[in-house]
Amino acid sequence: MLTAAVTLFNEQGYDATSVSDLAVRLGLTKSAMYHHFSSKEQLLEMALGEALDGLEGVLALPEAQSGTASERLHFVLRAATQVLLDRLPYVTLLLRVRGNSDVERRALERRRAFDHQMASLVREAQAAGSVRPDVDSAIVTRLIFGMLNSTIEWYRPTGPIDRDALTHDILTVAFDGISPR
Amino acid sequence: MLTAAVTLFNEQGYDATSVSDLAVRLGLTKSAMYHHFSSKEQLLEMALGEALDGLEGVLALPEAQSGTASERLHFVLRAATQVLLDRLPYVTLLLRVRGNSDVERRALERRRAFDHQMASLVREAQAAGSVRPDVDSAIVTRLIFGMLNSTIEWYRPTGPIDRDALTHDILTVAFDGISPR
Repeated sequence: MLTAAVTLFNEQGYDATSVSDLAVRLGLTKSAMYHHFSSKEQLLEMALGEALDGLEGVLALPEAQSGTASERLHFVLRAATQVLLDRLPYVTLLLRVRGNSDVERRALERRRAFDHQMASLVREAQAAGSVRPDVDSAIVTRLIFGMLNSTIEWYRPTGPIDRDALTHDILTVAFDGISPR
Repeated sequence: MLTAAVTLFNEQGYDATSVSDLAVRLGLTKSAMYHHFSSKEQLLEMALGEALDGLEGVLALPEAQSGTASERLHFVLRAATQVLLDRLPYVTLLLRVRGNSDVERRALERRRAFDHQMASLVREAQAAGSVRPDVDSAIVTRLIFGMLNSTIEWYRPTGPIDRDALTHDILTVAFDGISPR
């Protein structure tokens, strides 16, 4: 049911989707649906949680907490890419949230906290000499996540693009760029 | 008037914006407005043209047409970044177009043609050995433009981020990545 809800929210927008639309999509009555959840907003909260729990979970893994800043940064970027590709519809929904309700504002708050932790990891790696000194750590963190997040526009798990090739190319551009070494 | 229209389209969505909304914003009557343009769609077409003419104009410049593939690619990415930052509201509008009308579909068609020309320039540079061989030219073209386009979410010309620093960091990530050489 959550999968169907998220698909519909992404197709026509959360605000424009009613519980009735969702009931039609699932072939259920509205009262059968309310047996499973109490409001449309609860579905939104669960869906955004799938994306945020995944991203925050990456930072909680042992490999994100020990090792050099460079090792942690490589691990975290690879793992965050996997979360994005594994939970594409949930992350897509998260990236479209604009803060129109308490649920959305809490999600934005968690997303900002994740972004800050990423930026401070990049800053730490830069201080340790494993990120080039001539870039701004906050800007490149945004650029790398902008690149990563942009895949929601065109990557489809059932499409022609190989997931491992995509992961490789994302990490290659982020760390090494397209110029040959 | 075009600037005001684009600002409003970006704030509340093109479909949700009426000519009356625009008249209120400009402090004009609707009939005074129709003295200047014939329909809301004409404003959309002009606005999308600002973005597309800018991007296509880059490919038409002499520096985009002579020199090595590597020189042309560096020139074109830098110049496309400048178009994006110069025409931020217009490019923002372009990136949100979903193809809901003939005007939108023609804009998407022009955008796709630009993307194809970029991908073939990357492929040409790769064949010449100036793009690393272990990445997919079509994927990295999308990733680099994904990164570039993501700046519309957070870069503001009047904000704290320096435009030259941003341009430098975009081109650095694209060509060299964040790892020190």
